[in-house]
Amino acid sequence: MTVAGERELPLALTMGEPAGIGGEIALMAWARRADRIPPFFAIDDPARLRALARRTGIAAAIEPIAAPEDAPSIFPRALPVLAEPIAVEVAPGRPDAAAAPAVLGAIDRAVALALAGRVAAVVTNPIHKAALYAAGFRHPGHTEYLADKAGLRHPSVMMLVSADLRVVPVTIHVSLREAIAGLTADAIVHCGRIAAAALATDFAVARPRLAVAGLNPHAGEDGHMGREDIDIVRPAIERLRAAGIAATGPHPPDTMFSASARKTYDAALCMYHDQALIPLKTLDFDGGVNVTLGLPFVRTSPDHGTAFDIAGTGRARPDSLIAALRLADVLARNRRAAQRGRDVA
Amino acid sequence: MTVAGERELPLALTMGEPAGIGGEIALMAWARRADRIPPFFAIDDPARLRALARRTGIAAAIEPIAAPEDAPSIFPRALPVLAEPIAVEVAPGRPDAAAAPAVLGAIDRAVALALAGRVAAVVTNPIHKAALYAAGFRHPGHTEYLADKAGLRHPSVMMLVSADLRVVPVTIHVSLREAIAGLTADAIVHCGRIAAAALATDFAVARPRLAVAGLNPHAGEDGHMGREDIDIVRPAIERLRAAGIAATGPHPPDTMFSASARKTYDAALCMYHDQALIPLKTLDFDGGVNVTLGLPFVRTSPDHGTAFDIAGTGRARPDSLIAALRLADVLARNRRAAQRGRDVA
Repeated sequence: MTVAGERELPLALTMGEPAGIGGEIALMAWARRADRIPPFFAIDDPARLRALARRTGIAAAIEPIAAPEDAPSIFPRALPVLAEPIAVEVAPGRPDAAAAPAVLGAIDRAVALALAGRVAAVVTNPIHKAALYAAGFRHPGHTEYLADKAGLRHPSVMMLVSADLRVVPVTIHVSLREAIAGLTADAIVHCGRIAAAALATDFAVARPRLAVAGLNPHAGEDGHMGREDIDIVRPAIERLRAAGIAATGPHPPDTMFSASARKTYDAALCMYHDQALIPLKTLDFDGGVNVTLGLPFVRTSPDHGTAFDIAGTGRARPDSLIAALRLADVLARNRRAAQRGRDVA
Repeated sequence: MTVAGERELPLALTMGEPAGIGGEIALMAWARRADRIPPFFAIDDPARLRALARRTGIAAAIEPIAAPEDAPSIFPRALPVLAEPIAVEVAPGRPDAAAAPAVLGAIDRAVALALAGRVAAVVTNPIHKAALYAAGFRHPGHTEYLADKAGLRHPSVMMLVSADLRVVPVTIHVSLREAIAGLTADAIVHCGRIAAAALATDFAVARPRLAVAGLNPHAGEDGHMGREDIDIVRPAIERLRAAGIAATGPHPPDTMFSASARKTYDAALCMYHDQALIPLKTLDFDGGVNVTLGLPFVRTSPDHGTAFDIAGTGRARPDSLIAALRLADVLARNRRAAQRGRDVA
């Protein structure tokens, strides 16, 4: 739904690792543009995308654009591409550190355009950190790099979204042992506050309900199986409630993702990576979307990696990227509507 | 399928905690006897089951039997009950330690009948450990008690079975921290060997395939997120393979339960309780069955507890008990067929 007189902004899609499947799933997503794909443009190397379309047989036209504003009118006839030339020719499956400046350049430009209000949201293709580290990249990951470029002072929060479930892992890419050792009430409260705010603003949930998972089996069964649920999780829930957030738990982790349990909350706050990712990927392996909460703009990304093993073959599935584009569009519209509401009030 | 001349043995169903839902789900399961419910009898107090049928309005007739052999012919007209009188009247939701001798007596008799070859298998209703501890029970749980009564010297192994998935948790009712600290290659190998043997004998899987989950996110990503997958899980998989078992992994835990991944294995060996239980209960909340592997007889149980909050109301769902009865019947038939095969060979 576009408000009368509101200019239609396109989504910016970054190149990601050029040896991965990012380019071909971008072409596939554009080729399915009639299927409710919101207008987007790629920040990528036009020549390599043309070669990729030929190689994979994906029926996609490429048209370079000078500015994001040109994208919506071109989108119906060609994939608009804001040129970010790559210094080397990158073969599928073979990342090359010489491509790193273009990979990072695409992210930088997407962030700058988003901060300037010239794109509706940022959608990022997966990167390959090792290739970037070799070129001097110093961030733990894609999201931290983005958050840094966006001037964020607090940690951003990851949410994974599928048709059936939204999950927020409080600890992410650390060993299970470190996830337990590093779990704090502060981290749970931080994630809970950011998630509740994003649900209200970006997901248009009037009164967000958070289900907080316990850490231990059966949420510790009153301390019989671990003290963390009493000492860390429960106090965090109390602090969230004191802040006016409808948080419940700690819930036994094994029963909280059933179909009937899922109806009782808008997002599940999970204590470790697999507690969040197992139910999400078990229910919907291909359609999950990664959303970064807490940024000054909407950012989504497909919930998969570079898939070097199938890159360049045209066998990759664009489902998650398409879901990421659609969700970015919805979240950005909701956020603009919420901002207009605040401006009016 | 019954081999000509083979006597039809009934299943023995134990009372479980009489303050819980065991009695009413037994009545409900019998009431649905026309729906492929294998003949079973309850080891329970006939008077309390009659009162429960009246109270809940479940259309079930009760008929005491003198011996298991009487059950199959009575089953079409009434639920056969091998009398195990309870010394007190137990109100729904209010466990009473005075009932403990009957609760344990029912288990003891089921085990003795199974060891004597007079029942096809044992199906157990959920117990309430606290009520038994108060009466002097000294085992960590139901399964350990059964294993002890059955004379087992090695730990039995738990498998959870649903229509979509079979999982074997290597560590079970301990805190997540203790699950990590206590994880050993020996335990993984023990569970893998017992699971593979049971898949072949009881589940009639000609060449069982085990998918072994990693402990850490992404199975540790080559040691970047924890060493356990390299130091403990991988060596265990190598030992299983050396023993001729088709074991793969360590698999990233979040992707191994997708519909397509599930087609590649017969059971997933999981490193901790929720890694096994989250995918199982997310996919099928009501139909899961708990199977104890490694016993000299087949034992299944519903995958839920005593549900004191709804006991006596008739609102409990018998789905999991019915699944447990059906599965016990199938497993027992498969095991007998495998034993006949061995006897012939």
